[in-house]
Amino acid sequence: MKREILLYGDSQSNADILYFTGIFVPDPFFAFTLGGKNCALVGSLEVGRLRENSKLDRVFDLSSELKSLSASAVRDDVSVLSSVLKKNKVGSFYVPKNFPAYQLERLRSEGFDLQVLDTEIFPSREVKSRAEIAQIKRANSVAEAAFEYSEEILRNSKIERGILFWRGSALSSEILRAEIEKLCLSLGADAMHTIVAAGNQACNPHEVGHGAIPANSLIVIDIFPRLRDSGYFGDMTRTFLKGVPSEAQYRLVDAVLKAQSKAILSIKAGVDGADVHSLVRETFEKCGYKTECRRGVWSGFFHSTGHGLGLEVHEAPSLGLRGAKLKAGNVVTVEPGLYYRGLGGCRIEDNVAVEKSRARLLSDYHYRWIVE
Amino acid sequence: MKREILLYGDSQSNADILYFTGIFVPDPFFAFTLGGKNCALVGSLEVGRLRENSKLDRVFDLSSELKSLSASAVRDDVSVLSSVLKKNKVGSFYVPKNFPAYQLERLRSEGFDLQVLDTEIFPSREVKSRAEIAQIKRANSVAEAAFEYSEEILRNSKIERGILFWRGSALSSEILRAEIEKLCLSLGADAMHTIVAAGNQACNPHEVGHGAIPANSLIVIDIFPRLRDSGYFGDMTRTFLKGVPSEAQYRLVDAVLKAQSKAILSIKAGVDGADVHSLVRETFEKCGYKTECRRGVWSGFFHSTGHGLGLEVHEAPSLGLRGAKLKAGNVVTVEPGLYYRGLGGCRIEDNVAVEKSRARLLSDYHYRWIVE
Repeated sequence: MKREILLYGDSQSNADILYFTGIFVPDPFFAFTLGGKNCALVGSLEVGRLRENSKLDRVFDLSSELKSLSASAVRDDVSVLSSVLKKNKVGSFYVPKNFPAYQLERLRSEGFDLQVLDTEIFPSREVKSRAEIAQIKRANSVAEAAFEYSEEILRNSKIERGILFWRGSALSSEILRAEIEKLCLSLGADAMHTIVAAGNQACNPHEVGHGAIPANSLIVIDIFPRLRDSGYFGDMTRTFLKGVPSEAQYRLVDAVLKAQSKAILSIKAGVDGADVHSLVRETFEKCGYKTECRRGVWSGFFHSTGHGLGLEVHEAPSLGLRGAKLKAGNVVTVEPGLYYRGLGGCRIEDNVAVEKSRARLLSDYHYRWIVE
Repeated sequence: MKREILLYGDSQSNADILYFTGIFVPDPFFAFTLGGKNCALVGSLEVGRLRENSKLDRVFDLSSELKSLSASAVRDDVSVLSSVLKKNKVGSFYVPKNFPAYQLERLRSEGFDLQVLDTEIFPSREVKSRAEIAQIKRANSVAEAAFEYSEEILRNSKIERGILFWRGSALSSEILRAEIEKLCLSLGADAMHTIVAAGNQACNPHEVGHGAIPANSLIVIDIFPRLRDSGYFGDMTRTFLKGVPSEAQYRLVDAVLKAQSKAILSIKAGVDGADVHSLVRETFEKCGYKTECRRGVWSGFFHSTGHGLGLEVHEAPSLGLRGAKLKAGNVVTVEPGLYYRGLGGCRIEDNVAVEKSRARLLSDYHYRWIVE
């Protein structure tokens, strides 16, 4: 007997379910295949919307199915699913890595054979169609507009007592982040946890940044807007500086730009992501930038070079230590960075589509970083 | 031996992990207790930030622990966790319902005893502290500002050819939603999937709404902003109408207001959520509003009366069919609604904190619904 696929979750945070159903559903529910048909089991609140607007072939109504349960059954969605599956005579499923433990154990105790995959449940998600690549480009065009606006704000800021002032008050990471994210929203994308981190703050690469932005300091801006209609992400980073850079800042930015451009040029189908990462590490070492951990604090280049991008902001394949052989149709970020307390951080990130003989850029923004 | 707690996930989408760590981490990781200490295992990218800014007592560095793995071990976070736990001589854990199947099976095969709880892993999350209640009120004050702004937009809109015009162009659900969400963002909260649904669109209660907003039509606006700093949600709904209501619209809104006020007055510690829900259903029936499903389409009142609110927008306890005995410190939404194709939908939602002898409102906005 053919093994079917079974998923459980909400489609806002679970990208496999969004991929499978094509619709945002805020509460967790079961989605599954049944003899070639894509199905879901949802409450009365969602039935109409899913029947009208999703990619699903069949939508079961939880509340009407509840009526046909035996009196002794637990009155919940697991019992209803079990009854639906038994009626349809299917018993064995693949479930994804993140399938929840409770539903796994309940269904197994009802006699279903659930096999947890250790690979992706939809390998096709890693190989983007033209339409998907167009969505990612569209999401990046939102990020690009936000970089343009950020530069405009930095350009219009004045330096006083070592910090930036914009429209009469100190320009903080919080204010610049809110301006960026409001712009993304007005362009149809949610940008959350946008990083606007200056000086030493940027040396923790996931620190979003806070407080007044100093002059003459590297400002890492990492924007990953998600399109509201389709759920696809863009992901770009630029590093700016308002004022006059030091020699050391110049060298740092140069090294990152060089490493990024080398990495992008090395990417094509068949290359291993781990080799792209090694190339970046070697480039930094040759430029004299060491990576080390002292008393629990990392400096240098201590994250991966990139990751897949699509309905999740971090997905397969990886351009990191683990790596994976790149395939035509993969979309990956290329985002080397260097971080040294005292000097600050620099990261530059673009996205590429892997093609047979090259990498095609899906983001398009200049690399000028000094704002006067 | 005492059973420890083990969690796996990212703290943006997993509220238990946010509750446990007090910090937003975008990628999944292990969080766990170890002899009274709260711990996490994260990569070098996150170590510094978690040691500095989280509520955790101990943060293990994945990359340095990787070095101590045996040559034959899979080089991933599960192997590292297993090695850390063995070194610390702990073997048995409770895991939450949503613990992922892959990590469950891997750790069990390494000899760990993982028991999947069928109750909440942090029951204390259901009983809010004063500080948590203050956060929810703060989130609702963002929603209140957004309702005020929405009303202002409706007030300034002109009716032409049966639809609303604002600032020279047709006012659509999309435009009003974007205005609401930009305002929330500028007040420090993320409002996503905000519902602005007019006419028949509102009859699918999770339909977010699209297209031009008609005059003389009920407009359901449901806003659930999440505070960016703390992660707590507010959740409020109002129904407006621009123009002149019909007799039937009047009656519909009146019935919902009446049901909501009865429900709120009935809430106090010890009451069962299912009884609050029954009271709403009875009120609607007495007012002559039937709930039924015809050819797969529901009309009337077909969602629950409310749900718990906190770090998740939907959490325990439920004011629905299943119910639960309410405790002092619970925070719940009270949001009855009626939906009839042809007439439209009306939902009115506030949040209350359950106290010993009453329900205390955590949201504060008027109920005038006709905008001239």
